[in-house]
Amino acid sequence: MSSSLEIYKKKTRKSAGLFAKSKKFHVNGVSHNIRFFEPYPFVTKSAKGKHIVDVDGNKYTDYWMGHWSLILGHAASQVMGRVKSQLQSCWMHGTVNEMTVSFSEIIQKAVPVAEKIRYVSTGTEATMYAVRIARSVTGKKIIAKIDGGWHGYTTDLLKSVNYPFEQSESTGLVDDIHIVSLPYNDLAGSIKILDTIKDDLAGVIIEPVLGGGGCIPASKEYLTGIQEYAHKNNSLFLLDEIVTGFRFSFGCFYKSMRLDPDIVTLGKIVGGGFPIGVICGKNDIMKITDTTTHNKLDRSYVGGGTFSANPVTMTSGRAMLEFLKKNPTVYKKIGKLGESARKGLSRVFDNKVQVTGMGSLFMPHFLANGVTRITNAQDAARCDAKLLHRYHFDMIAKDGIFFLPGKLGAISYAHSEPDIKQLIEASSRFSASLK
Amino acid sequence: MSSSLEIYKKKTRKSAGLFAKSKKFHVNGVSHNIRFFEPYPFVTKSAKGKHIVDVDGNKYTDYWMGHWSLILGHAASQVMGRVKSQLQSCWMHGTVNEMTVSFSEIIQKAVPVAEKIRYVSTGTEATMYAVRIARSVTGKKIIAKIDGGWHGYTTDLLKSVNYPFEQSESTGLVDDIHIVSLPYNDLAGSIKILDTIKDDLAGVIIEPVLGGGGCIPASKEYLTGIQEYAHKNNSLFLLDEIVTGFRFSFGCFYKSMRLDPDIVTLGKIVGGGFPIGVICGKNDIMKITDTTTHNKLDRSYVGGGTFSANPVTMTSGRAMLEFLKKNPTVYKKIGKLGESARKGLSRVFDNKVQVTGMGSLFMPHFLANGVTRITNAQDAARCDAKLLHRYHFDMIAKDGIFFLPGKLGAISYAHSEPDIKQLIEASSRFSASLK
Repeated sequence: MSSSLEIYKKKTRKSAGLFAKSKKFHVNGVSHNIRFFEPYPFVTKSAKGKHIVDVDGNKYTDYWMGHWSLILGHAASQVMGRVKSQLQSCWMHGTVNEMTVSFSEIIQKAVPVAEKIRYVSTGTEATMYAVRIARSVTGKKIIAKIDGGWHGYTTDLLKSVNYPFEQSESTGLVDDIHIVSLPYNDLAGSIKILDTIKDDLAGVIIEPVLGGGGCIPASKEYLTGIQEYAHKNNSLFLLDEIVTGFRFSFGCFYKSMRLDPDIVTLGKIVGGGFPIGVICGKNDIMKITDTTTHNKLDRSYVGGGTFSANPVTMTSGRAMLEFLKKNPTVYKKIGKLGESARKGLSRVFDNKVQVTGMGSLFMPHFLANGVTRITNAQDAARCDAKLLHRYHFDMIAKDGIFFLPGKLGAISYAHSEPDIKQLIEASSRFSASLK
Repeated sequence: MSSSLEIYKKKTRKSAGLFAKSKKFHVNGVSHNIRFFEPYPFVTKSAKGKHIVDVDGNKYTDYWMGHWSLILGHAASQVMGRVKSQLQSCWMHGTVNEMTVSFSEIIQKAVPVAEKIRYVSTGTEATMYAVRIARSVTGKKIIAKIDGGWHGYTTDLLKSVNYPFEQSESTGLVDDIHIVSLPYNDLAGSIKILDTIKDDLAGVIIEPVLGGGGCIPASKEYLTGIQEYAHKNNSLFLLDEIVTGFRFSFGCFYKSMRLDPDIVTLGKIVGGGFPIGVICGKNDIMKITDTTTHNKLDRSYVGGGTFSANPVTMTSGRAMLEFLKKNPTVYKKIGKLGESARKGLSRVFDNKVQVTGMGSLFMPHFLANGVTRITNAQDAARCDAKLLHRYHFDMIAKDGIFFLPGKLGAISYAHSEPDIKQLIEASSRFSASLK
C-alpha cells in the first residue's frame, strides 16, 4: 500500500506546481504561517457547504472552516445573496452607514456588555484596542494573559503563545515586560503571580476556550475567580470571544457562565466570513475613547481603520446573525455532532488520546510525556504533535477529510451525521495502523 | 439666505434620526473617529462612480472616495463582476489560493522591492509588521517616524501624529520611548536628531506624501538623504506607500524618485476597496519571517490573520491592478484633473490659501498664524483648520460636494472636467462669502 505522502503527491500535482510558484512571491509560500504543512499545502480552487475543492479537483470535507469562522459552511446562501445585492450599491465608502446600526442592535441584544461597539477589521486590532483601553481606564500598565493564549499578532499581546511559553515569541519586540503570563485553569497559581503585580495590573485577558492553545475550555471556577480578583484590584476583566462568540449559542460564552466582563472582543463568525473585529464594552469603559469629549492627553486612541464597518462586512455579518437568531437548531445540530465526534474519537483511539473541546469544537491530543489529562496549553503542547500532524495529513491524503494539520476541528451547519461517521471510520483505520 | 447648517439639517432629516440611533450603539456614533463631523455626518445609502448618496436621497460628488482607496470610483464595474463571480466559489477559506499567486506576480513586476510579499488585512497591521521586521533584522530598537506621519493605529507607531506632536497621542501606550520623531522635509534637522540615536536606530518609516498630515509631498533631496543616512548606519529605510502606491502611476512613488527602500507597505487602492494591507520586502530582509527555517528565538513573527489573502480581496485587488495596468490613461486623466483642481483653487482663494498635493491628490490650506508655505505637518496644523471645515461643510450643504471635512481630496477615474469646474465654482462662491 502506498504511503500517504505518495498518495498526496500523486493527487495534488497542480497544487505542487502552483505552490512552487507561490514560494517565489511569498515567504514560505503562504500568507499566514500556519497554512503551510509538509510537503506543501494543496491550493484551493473553490468551496461550498462542507466541502473545499483543490485545483486538482480533489474534494475534502472541511473541518478547518476558514480558521473556524464559517459556522454555516462555505459560501452560505443565507449570506451570499445579501452580499451580492450589497455589492450593487457599493462595497466601500468610509462614511456612516445604515447596516452598521442594525447590525449593532442585534449584537447589543445578544451580548449585553456591548453597550458600546467599535468595529475594526481583524481580531488582532480588536485585542490591541481592548488592552489599550484597559491601560487607559486604569492608568496601569501590565496586562496578564494565559500561557498559550492567542489574541492575534498585536505587539501588545505577543508573549507566551507557543511552547515553551517562557521563551520570547519573536525578535523585534521591545515591550513585553508589560505582559505577564498565567497558568490556565490554575486559580491558585494564577493569583500567586497576579499578587506580585496587582498594583500595576491594568487587566487580564482570557479566551474562555483556548483556541490555538489546544481547544481547552476554562473552568467556571477559574474564570469566576480571575474576574473577582481583577475587579477587586481595580483591573479590567477582558474576554476574547473571537473564537467562542456565537459559536455555542446565540451570544457569548460568558453569558452561560454568568460572568461580568468589562470588554469582550468578537471576530470570525460575526463577520459572516468577511474581515471583522469587534470591541464590545460597557459605556463607562468605552467613553474614554470618545475623541469629541477627550483630547490627546486623556483619551484612549481607538481607531477603526479605512475598512472598519464597511458595508460588505456589515451586510454579511448581519445576514449571518439574523439567520442564527432565527434558527437555534443550528446550535443544537452542531453541538450534537460535536458530541458524537468527541465520543467517537475517544472510542477509536482508546486510551491513546484525549479529545478536548465543547459544542461544535473538538481536538484529539495524542497523550505523551506522561500527560494523562489536558487542562492547559502546556499539557497540550507536551502531547505528540507529530503524530497529530501525521493523523491529519493521513486523512487529507487518503480520506478526503481536511483539518489544518495540528489544529482543532470546527463543525458547521453544513456537516451532518454521516460526515462524523466517516471521520470516525477514517480515524479508526489510522488508529489501527498504529498498532 | 439660510445658513449652511440650516440647509444641511433640513435636507438630512433621516440621517439625523439614524445617527441619533447610531450614537446609542457606537462611541460618538461612528466606527472611525474621523468620520464624525458637526452637527452629525450624513448616513450613506449607496454609492456609484463619483457619487455617494445618503439615506435622504441627497447625491454628493465624492472626493473622500473611501479614505482615498477608490481610484476608479465607487462600485467600479471593472471589479464588481469579478468579485460577484468569486463569491459563487467562496469568499473565505483560510488556505492557499490561486488568486494570491497571480496577484503577487503583478505587484512584484510593478514594485521591485516586493521580492517577497505578505498579505494582511489592514494598513495598521502592515506597518506594525514592517517595524517589527526592521527591529528583528537590525537587532536595534528605535524607529524614527515623521512629525505628522500617519501609519495607522498600531501601538508601535502611535506617536507624533496630531499637533502638537510632542504630546502623547493617547493614554494607555506603554512603549513610545522607542519611537523618535523627525521634522519632515528638513534633512539637517532630521539628521541632527538621528545622530543622537543612530546606534539603536532600527529604521526610519516615511509616507512619501504625508496623507493625514496634510497632503504634502516629500522632496527628493529629503528622501534620498534619509535613505542614505539609514543605510550608512545599518538601519532600514521603510516607505509607507499605503496612500501613494498605485496612486500616481502603475507602481510605487519611490520608483519615480529612484529610491531603494528595504520594505514598502501597501494598502487602499491595491485591494480594490476590500480590506488589505501588504508588506513588500527584499528577500534578504523578509527571510527572517520564515517560521520553517527560524525558531522563536531568531525569527520575526509576522502573521497574516484569519482573513489574510482571502479570495475576495485577492480577486478584487487583482481586477483593479489588471485594469490599471492596461489603462495608463487613468493616471494621465486624474493627474490632469488634479492639476486643474490645484490651479483653480489657488486662483479662487487668491493668496488666502496654499493648495498642496500632487497628481490626483489635493488639499487647500487656509494660511494663518504667519504660515506662508506648507512644507510639513506643523505648517499644515498651524493653518486655519476651522475655516477648512467650514468650507468643506458649506459644499456638503449647498453644493452636493463631499470632502470629509478637513481632509485631502482624491480624484478618481469616475470624475471629469465638469466636476472640477463645479468644485472651483463652489469654492469661488465660498471665497467670495469670506470678503
